[in-house]
Amino acid sequence: MVARKDSAAFDIERFQQEVRTEALEPLWLQAANVLSPEPVTHVQPYLWRWTLVRERILQAGTLVPLGKDGADRRVLALKNPGLRLGIATTQTLTAAVQLVHAGEQALSHRHSPAAIRFIIEGQGAWTVVDGQPCSMAPGDLILTPNWTWHGHVNAGNSPMIWLDVLDVPLVVSLNQVFYEEYPSGLQPTERAHDDSLLRYGAGTLLPTWEHPRTAYSPLFSYKWEHTVARLHDLAQMDGSPYDGVALSYTNPFTGGPVLPTMACYIQLLRPREHTRAHRHTASVIYHVVRGQGATIVNGTRLAWGPGDTFSLPTWVWHEHVNDSDIEEAILFSVSDMPVLRALDLYREEPYVLNGGRQSECTG
Amino acid sequence: MVARKDSAAFDIERFQQEVRTEALEPLWLQAANVLSPEPVTHVQPYLWRWTLVRERILQAGTLVPLGKDGADRRVLALKNPGLRLGIATTQTLTAAVQLVHAGEQALSHRHSPAAIRFIIEGQGAWTVVDGQPCSMAPGDLILTPNWTWHGHVNAGNSPMIWLDVLDVPLVVSLNQVFYEEYPSGLQPTERAHDDSLLRYGAGTLLPTWEHPRTAYSPLFSYKWEHTVARLHDLAQMDGSPYDGVALSYTNPFTGGPVLPTMACYIQLLRPREHTRAHRHTASVIYHVVRGQGATIVNGTRLAWGPGDTFSLPTWVWHEHVNDSDIEEAILFSVSDMPVLRALDLYREEPYVLNGGRQSECTG
Amino acid sequence: MVARKDSAAFDIERFQQEVRTEALEPLWLQAANVLSPEPVTHVQPYLWRWTLVRERILQAGTLVPLGKDGADRRVLALKNPGLRLGIATTQTLTAAVQLVHAGEQALSHRHSPAAIRFIIEGQGAWTVVDGQPCSMAPGDLILTPNWTWHGHVNAGNSPMIWLDVLDVPLVVSLNQVFYEEYPSGLQPTERAHDDSLLRYGAGTLLPTWEHPRTAYSPLFSYKWEHTVARLHDLAQMDGSPYDGVALSYTNPFTGGPVLPTMACYIQLLRPREHTRAHRHTASVIYHVVRGQGATIVNGTRLAWGPGDTFSLPTWVWHEHVNDSDIEEAILFSVSDMPVLRALDLYREEPYVLNGGRQSECTG
Amino acid sequence: MVARKDSAAFDIERFQQEVRTEALEPLWLQAANVLSPEPVTHVQPYLWRWTLVRERILQAGTLVPLGKDGADRRVLALKNPGLRLGIATTQTLTAAVQLVHAGEQALSHRHSPAAIRFIIEGQGAWTVVDGQPCSMAPGDLILTPNWTWHGHVNAGNSPMIWLDVLDVPLVVSLNQVFYEEYPSGLQPTERAHDDSLLRYGAGTLLPTWEHPRTAYSPLFSYKWEHTVARLHDLAQMDGSPYDGVALSYTNPFTGGPVLPTMACYIQLLRPREHTRAHRHTASVIYHVVRGQGATIVNGTRLAWGPGDTFSLPTWVWHEHVNDSDIEEAILFSVSDMPVLRALDLYREEPYVLNGGRQSECTG
Repeated sequence: MVARKDSAAFDIERFQQEVRTEALEPLWLQAANVLSPEPVTHVQPYLWRWTLVRERILQAGTLVPLGKDGADRRVLALKNPGLRLGIATTQTLTAAVQLVHAGEQALSHRHSPAAIRFIIEGQGAWTVVDGQPCSMAPGDLILTPNWTWHGHVNAGNSPMIWLDVLDVPLVVSLNQVFYEEYPSGLQPTERAHDDSLLRYGAGTLLPTWEHPRTAYSPLFSYKWEHTVARLHDLAQMDGSPYDGVALSYTNPFTGGPVLPTMACYIQLLRPREHTRAHRHTASVIYHVVRGQGATIVNGTRLAWGPGDTFSLPTWVWHEHVNDSDIEEAILFSVSDMPVLRALDLYREEPYVLNGGRQSECTG
Repeated sequence: MVARKDSAAFDIERFQQEVRTEALEPLWLQAANVLSPEPVTHVQPYLWRWTLVRERILQAGTLVPLGKDGADRRVLALKNPGLRLGIATTQTLTAAVQLVHAGEQALSHRHSPAAIRFIIEGQGAWTVVDGQPCSMAPGDLILTPNWTWHGHVNAGNSPMIWLDVLDVPLVVSLNQVFYEEYPSGLQPTERAHDDSLLRYGAGTLLPTWEHPRTAYSPLFSYKWEHTVARLHDLAQMDGSPYDGVALSYTNPFTGGPVLPTMACYIQLLRPREHTRAHRHTASVIYHVVRGQGATIVNGTRLAWGPGDTFSLPTWVWHEHVNDSDIEEAILFSVSDMPVLRALDLYREEPYVLNGGRQSECTG
Repeated sequence: MVARKDSAAFDIERFQQEVRTEALEPLWLQAANVLSPEPVTHVQPYLWRWTLVRERILQAGTLVPLGKDGADRRVLALKNPGLRLGIATTQTLTAAVQLVHAGEQALSHRHSPAAIRFIIEGQGAWTVVDGQPCSMAPGDLILTPNWTWHGHVNAGNSPMIWLDVLDVPLVVSLNQVFYEEYPSGLQPTERAHDDSLLRYGAGTLLPTWEHPRTAYSPLFSYKWEHTVARLHDLAQMDGSPYDGVALSYTNPFTGGPVLPTMACYIQLLRPREHTRAHRHTASVIYHVVRGQGATIVNGTRLAWGPGDTFSLPTWVWHEHVNDSDIEEAILFSVSDMPVLRALDLYREEPYVLNGGRQSECTG
Repeated sequence: MVARKDSAAFDIERFQQEVRTEALEPLWLQAANVLSPEPVTHVQPYLWRWTLVRERILQAGTLVPLGKDGADRRVLALKNPGLRLGIATTQTLTAAVQLVHAGEQALSHRHSPAAIRFIIEGQGAWTVVDGQPCSMAPGDLILTPNWTWHGHVNAGNSPMIWLDVLDVPLVVSLNQVFYEEYPSGLQPTERAHDDSLLRYGAGTLLPTWEHPRTAYSPLFSYKWEHTVARLHDLAQMDGSPYDGVALSYTNPFTGGPVLPTMACYIQLLRPREHTRAHRHTASVIYHVVRGQGATIVNGTRLAWGPGDTFSLPTWVWHEHVNDSDIEEAILFSVSDMPVLRALDLYREEPYVLNGGRQSECTG
């Protein structure tokens, strides 16, 4: 072995090169990349305009057939421009829009990534989740948890468009993807339409003869008329300083999030409501159900209107504004918070300067 | 809008190009990449020979000083040859070897990735975890959970070498790294040596005046003499068909894994013990404490001896063999199983053909 | 000491007498009393007719004033005829009827026994629970958990009568009664009417800004129109073989029972529905909301009609019958099941002979 | 109906008499009995001297044979002098002493009341718990949980005497007693001696191949040499202000109490240690393992020495004193605290006057 100080024969550069050929990596060359003082992410706050997204998915509807000679799913992923590969909207979540034309079916399959659907437009379609048709109407939330069979049927007479959010980037990064097609196309119906809604939809009165043991909510459907009524009921309350009247969709058997990997929320911002800023380590997909406003992210204003979808990266300051004097604004969102809580990685922090609101850099 | 069938002016290729400039990605171009029937991983089963690793970390000990003019930590990561970047040994775990020479200190810092240390050689050193010195001797397990301060002191007179396992790839992929250096170098000692061992080490008799509420085990030290005694005590039992006499290091306040992201195990294979094969979705780092044997991974034999470390990817068939007629073999291991269980992604499956053992492809 | 066999000087009778003066009791004299093969109870299956109970509580209404010169509460307990002392309906539960006349108040107090109210008749009254007025109308369920302040106000113009169920016998037998009167009479209103219903009443959409940590449901009110609608919604389902369409009132934050000591249920028996028999170790108070039928208890028929209340002892075979060809029957019930589950004492067993139904002894 | 004020014909006394014949009890006649400001108990603080108890159980050993012509168990219950009936030491717990002579067996049975044994003297005996012999030596704790078979065998050559603590009064008051004799006398041995100790005794290293799902600790034995070693190890710590160095025996799979109804503790009072006073709603059985001292209960001094057993009622102020300048004192205790916690009835309060110590009334 060679002494360190006076050696020319065996220097550190050479050592580093050599060990790299031996599947060894000097930590001192990587530590600065890895151990950042605060989270580093390539995820950008980014907003997809509904006018554009709608036009594009309708174009896809003319170009891409569903089924054997086309696509299994007619979906455009909202790919975060900060991320190079794949279909990620944040590091854990994929948001996408999906179109099923009147008369079409998207055949049944299942996968270990979980998904939620939030319906944007159309009537008369349903998703068959583990044999149970879940009806789809604008504002409805439908769950297709990890490894549940699901196929889509549009028996109406207008195009059905919805927002998908999946935990695909998470499950891919964990190398945990399983996928299977239903052997015979569309899974037959084994239960009544909206059966789980009937059974479990009144979260405070549950059937005594059922004892679901799933890690996800056995309630698969959350209907819009109920959701919006609750928002209006609670609109008189102070609500959250950071989110206005924000409600968590819950598993009625636990009170917890609907899926082990994704939590869903609906929030109402009253006319001119401007929330305080905070940041947290969850990343979030927001979708605007109604209203005009903006979310200020690290000092930059993302202005939004109906149908728009935007991404909120990890650990960014953010606050919400309803720009209208008259109209309410409603945002639906999906967060990876349950992942971070389960792994003891969740943090949040209020913005304390300037009365709790960021000074805006741009508009 | 252009009709699909007869249009030449607006074809699907052009559509796909165009939407990609608009942060939209056609799912049908990605689905086959993403939705694999079974987990796809670039992680390879790979074994690092102790003779090589030891030689290289001792060379690093002569080349790389610790501290201001050198490295914060003198560490060689066991970088999986299947992964291009970074310091990952599996998609969630980093294994590494660390050396602290007699008289050296590695100053205190903390980070959101959690770590464990399993001591390989040396005497007279300790790690200060949140003010508590944890003594280090071969075979000891020491925890430095998420965001606990930790620094290392070698007050002995020989080099101290240990195995580190961290959840760095997991925490990096979740964009959740926080890192902070202790303001004044080494954190002062605030508690007695091995204080948590004194308080909580007898897992069945716990102090009534303490109510730890951490998500991780408040017991930071698991000493080898106790561990090996337990293995020998239990060696008369059948044990696990897949792992022999395998014990889980537990949090005495929950009976669960020591950390929310990593579970640690010690397992003894009796002379000539050859376990049955199974596969699971956890990825694992194994380190050979003693003995000669092999782990057969998807039909390929990874032969191992004392000090060797190897990686087990997700969802591979594996079985363990002690090749000796006389000597026991002992493997320490770290698994990401708690992550997968928390996210409802854990699966396991026994190998049912051929009496539960793979036919070996290679030796 | 004296040898056993041949001694006349010191016999066992004398020994037994002597040790009893020393606070020692020979177990062999008590074992047969204590260790019964199956539960022994003095609780009888007993039915209180509503016509009688109503007449009597109205008479109490003319005889017993509320307040300083009268009673704190105008309540008649349904005392089980099998129990000698006190106000117990089962060994753990007290059922009672309470009357508050128009214009009267029952002042605020709190106690460690928990209570529920199920409203029988009247309009325009409310109970103030920890500062929150909970409105009362027939069929409503109101909780006043352990140590919550509660007072009753009848601001309507008719008598208000309800069923109280408390865990008084349980808490008394555990020697755990605490009791306190509100210093200034009726606790002032600090929240809006039915505030908890507004906040938590939609069990599947919960406010994100609230994190109740109580061991009891923070939802204090369950309104009849919602309850009965759910029963009708679910009436098309098979339901429970033992209870028909039986729903559990739940804590929306846990999915569990409303109180740690009492679970509440509502069940609908369809015309001519006759359930199978089973037995369990819970004791139950049943109250008939509507319909005509019977519950067969250990072969004896307890015939019931609207307003009747009856007790079901521990470990008795029982099945329910709706005697009407046309009308539904609805039973409200309160069970000590959560106590037994928490203490690992709950058992249940189906009746397997005779097609699952007892042969009736009497009518 | 008769008006209240001017009626002589129908007065309240007559009403009260009449309704009592109808299984109705006016609450206003009972409320003062039931709703006490603080817990009322007939349980007295009482101490049983070991010299007396030992003499009496040995006399029983000469008078009362074990087995068919004698008693199932040769047990003297420490019956609280404040309680009229039965074998209760507190309202929930029965303490007793049991003797099995050399060569004797107490045949196997099981019951829904749970029991613990704390060995006082003798060697060479064991209890067979669900087929597993648990060895008995002074200071050992053995569990026989709810509905586990258990029989006792003294294969040594000296009398075996131990303290039993059962939750009999609790289970009786809940009307939940089930009891069954083992069909063929003593249950055969199905596992090795102290098998559970071997499997689970190292609470921080648990077998991966076992997943006990019992509500009680699957570890049935806690050996004295380990217990006392832990006390000495921790004797350097401050410990609890109320209890000195007090340790909870735990279920290694949960960190919680050993049984759902009873928690067991061991506590060491250092020479001249005099703890602070507090009170709590748990009732407790204390047994003196070694040392001379006193427990001051609501101002009255209960002086104790080795082998003495005493009862602590609910909600009494109490503090402990070791009277020796030289010797440690050790108390074993059993508490009904898990019951109260499960039912949300547990409270505790420190004594704040007089530096935290009661002024003593008597000695």
